Parts: sequence; structure tokens; C-alpha cells
Amino acid sequence: MRDLSRDNDFLSLNTTTVRGQAGLLDIIDAVARAGIPGISPWRDQTQACGIEIAAKCIKANGLKVSGYCRGGWFTTAGRAGFKAAVDDNRRAIDEAATLGAQCLVMVVGGLPERSRNLPGARALVRDSLAEVLPYAIAAGVPLALEPLHPMHAAERSCVNTMAQANDLCDELGTGIGIALDVYHVWWDPDLEREVKRAGRERLLAFHICDWLVPTRDMLFDRGMMGDGVIDIPYIRRLVENTGYSGFCEVEILSKDWWKRPIGEVLSTCVVRYRTVC
Amino acid sequence: MRDLSRDNDFLSLNTTTVRGQAGLLDIIDAVARAGIPGISPWRDQTQACGIEIAAKCIKANGLKVSGYCRGGWFTTAGRAGFKAAVDDNRRAIDEAATLGAQCLVMVVGGLPERSRNLPGARALVRDSLAEVLPYAIAAGVPLALEPLHPMHAAERSCVNTMAQANDLCDELGTGIGIALDVYHVWWDPDLEREVKRAGRERLLAFHICDWLVPTRDMLFDRGMMGDGVIDIPYIRRLVENTGYSGFCEVEILSKDWWKRPIGEVLSTCVVRYRTVC
Repeated sequence: MRDLSRDNDFLSLNTTTVRGQAGLLDIIDAVARAGIPGISPWRDQTQACGIEIAAKCIKANGLKVSGYCRGGWFTTAGRAGFKAAVDDNRRAIDEAATLGAQCLVMVVGGLPERSRNLPGARALVRDSLAEVLPYAIAAGVPLALEPLHPMHAAERSCVNTMAQANDLCDELGTGIGIALDVYHVWWDPDLEREVKRAGRERLLAFHICDWLVPTRDMLFDRGMMGDGVIDIPYIRRLVENTGYSGFCEVEILSKDWWKRPIGEVLSTCVVRYRTVC
Repeated sequence: MRDLSRDNDFLSLNTTTVRGQAGLLDIIDAVARAGIPGISPWRDQTQACGIEIAAKCIKANGLKVSGYCRGGWFTTAGRAGFKAAVDDNRRAIDEAATLGAQCLVMVVGGLPERSRNLPGARALVRDSLAEVLPYAIAAGVPLALEPLHPMHAAERSCVNTMAQANDLCDELGTGIGIALDVYHVWWDPDLEREVKRAGRERLLAFHICDWLVPTRDMLFDRGMMGDGVIDIPYIRRLVENTGYSGFCEVEILSKDWWKRPIGEVLSTCVVRYRTVC
């Protein structure tokens, strides 16, 4: 297991963590000044400033792009939306390639509107990923399936466990892996088995934050590492035991942290990364 | 699959559904007048009126007791609380026997206070159940493990899937089974497999309500059947394909439904049970 206490070498900031405070160009600047070597921007943020400008600014600041958020969202309009969703994912792949992102994080979508057909949504996700995958491979952008917590099954992702993500990877072949976020999987009794099963090849990203008790909002009440109940070192050990040597990407969606000065958020991320992760 | 449309023969009301409106004796009266043949009271409600009086009143109204809520809560004080929790569960078993309840529903508890050790909590649950089980068998009260949604792993239950409940039943032997609540398991990709695995012997209770979109509160925003996204008939078919022939117990924890007149809530339960379940 790596020693994180002495430097920030494997720290990355997912830019949604400070989306309340600044636009992407200012975030890039703050991340570089905080001595954080990695960044993972969101699509709406790159679109606001322009993807070419975002890529140039990230490169000028010497940052690595640990991921790009997010592709997916295949299910909103059901089968009728198949082609539009696939096309949009191809654009996201192009953007990820422009950024030099290590992966495109995939949040696959939940139930289609007015649908209760969860197996149907899952089949649509599989078919959509299969359609998008050759384009991603050609662009050199690995797709990173992110299983989302089961509380998001209806609205955001019908892929809810590492086992499901591994099954999809088995089915789809190369070019696709997994983004493991401790927030979504910490409860899973099969976590150890499924992290081993994923292995070094498939684990494309490792996201950290914490689960607060109580959690007052299902979307925007994630905690800073150390403020909640997730045993982050335990999960990091599982991940690094596979040979994972990539970034630990901080991704906190929180109405509380969005209210604080960006410098305070970033310096807290650094301290917690070094001391409790 | 049973035809529910013509009568209320398999309908039961979990009394927490109307806990905002009335005490237990008034609820029993309202349930009987609504033509609902089953009831499942909560412990705090029987304690408020006295367990003997509750039992007498339920019997006088000709109601069957589909379950008693709840045993469990083994983990709050960690290993130090083992004996107190076991003793309290023995009292719950006695109360369930007095009521003639078909099972004692077990909500096992989440992480101990100030703990991040989820595997430890799960081991404590297993040991506590093993300690309580002989007493339950002697009293003729089956224990019904209720896997709770993973969003409750920290605070309420570290048993979060049907697979975990089945594993515990495998380990503990006879006298223990499962209470399946659609709210907690509808998202589970292994649901079909694990319901089959549980089978008729283990499925001791079947709870119904709905998952609302959006869900505004993790505890108290459950929906009336038909108002959400759960494919209840699909899950009921899985359950009844095992040979399950017991009650469909309505359990809705909802700040909205607690505000409505008790008669309106019960008549809505009847209509929805007959038309959308």
C-alpha cells in the first residue's frame, strides 16, 4: 500500500468538488497552486469555457487528467433515444481525447421516464456501451463504468454494484473498465471479491470522499474524507493490492463544501488525503 | 400468481403506515373496519398500550398478525452491548409469541457508534442472531431477517441484500428466514436468483410500498404502491413462484401519508393492493 503522507503525487481533484465556487479555468489555476497534480473536469464545465481552451490551460499548468466526467446517460429516453445518446457519447469521447483524459467516466442512466422496467434499462445500457465502445477504442479513451449507489438506481444509474460492472466488462471485452468510488460501493459485502476480480487492468479510477451520518440529501451531502464512516484505507488497500498505481481522485458533491472558499476546500483535501486515506 | 383484485384475503397493514394518525388500539379498530384481515404492529406501539391488551384487541377483531416489528439492533453499542441486545431481543420474542405473530422482523443494526468496521458489525450480527435463535425456536417465533437498502448500512442495518440474508440463514440453520420488502431490494440485480434461493421455507414476509422519484428523505418518503417506480407485480411473481402464500404487508413510512386521515390511507391501500400489486 502506498504511503500518501509525504507528498501529493497521487492526488487528483474532481472539479465538481468546487463547482459552486468557480469556473473551470479558475479551478485549474487553484488546483495547480495547491500543488495537486491531477484534475478531472466535468463536461458542463469544459463546455462553458471551450474544450480546446480547457485542454490548453490544463496542459500549461502541468496537470494530469485522471478522468473526464461523464459519458453515459443512455436510458433517459429509452430505446427511442439510443442513437442520440450514442452520438453524444462519441462527442464526449472526442472531448476526453482532446483533454488527454486517462478515462471517460460512464454514469449509465437509470430508468427511462415513466418506466419500471429495470432489466430493460440494463439491457439498453449494455447495447449502448457495445455501440460506443469501438469509437472509444479507436480514440484511445478507455471507458470507466462507475457503479452508482443503489439509491441512484431509478434516476442516475441502473449499474449499482462492482459485480454488475465486472459482468458488463466480461461481456464487452477490452477498452472498458471500472471507476470505483468509495461512496457508492463501501457497503457492498462482495467488494473484496469484486475488486480482485476487476484487477489492475480494469480499475481505471479510484474516487474518494466520505459517507456522512446522517446523510441529509441523497445527491449533495457527501462528506470530506475522514468526516464519515467509510473505511477508506481498507478500500484503498483492496484496490492497490491489485496493482493499481493511479490517482486518488477527490469527488465531493456537497452543498456545505460548495459554500467554502476554494483555497480552504483544496487545502483540506490535501490534509485529509495525507492523513486519513 | 394469485389474483388480488377480488378481495383483501392476503392484505396486511404494518401499523407504522398510520403511526402519525392514531395509537395502536385505534389502528386495530380502523384496520378491521376497512376489511383488512392482517396487521403487523411495532414494538413501541404495543408498549404504549400494553402487550396483553394489544393481543386481546387484535384477537377480538379477528386479525392475523403477519409480523411483529422489530427485533435486532444488535450493533449500536458494539460488542459491549451484546448481552443487553440479546436480552432485549428475547423480550421481543416473548411479545411476538403473545401476539401470535407469524414472525419477528429483524432489523439488525448498522455500524456501532464511532466505528467504521463494517465486517466487524456483520460478524457481531451473526453472533447475536446465533445467541437469540434457540430462544426464538423454543418460543415458536420464526426470526425474519429484513435486508435493508444499502443507503441504511451505516445507521440501521449492515445486512443489505437478499444474498447476505440467505448466507446468514445458511449459516444459522432452521428457525430463521427472510422478510422481503420491495423497497429495499427492488434495485438488486441478483434478486431473482436470491428469491429462488430463499424459497418457500425462508420467505416469511412480503412487504410492499413504492420508491418515489425523487425521494426527498431517506427514511420517511416511501410511496404508496403505484406512485413510484417499483415493478411490484414482477417481484410478487418471483416470491409467489417459490410457493409463498402469505400476506402482502403494506409498510409505508411517509411524512405525507402520516398527515392524511386514517380511513383515506387504508382505503387507498386496499384499492392499490387490488389494482397495481
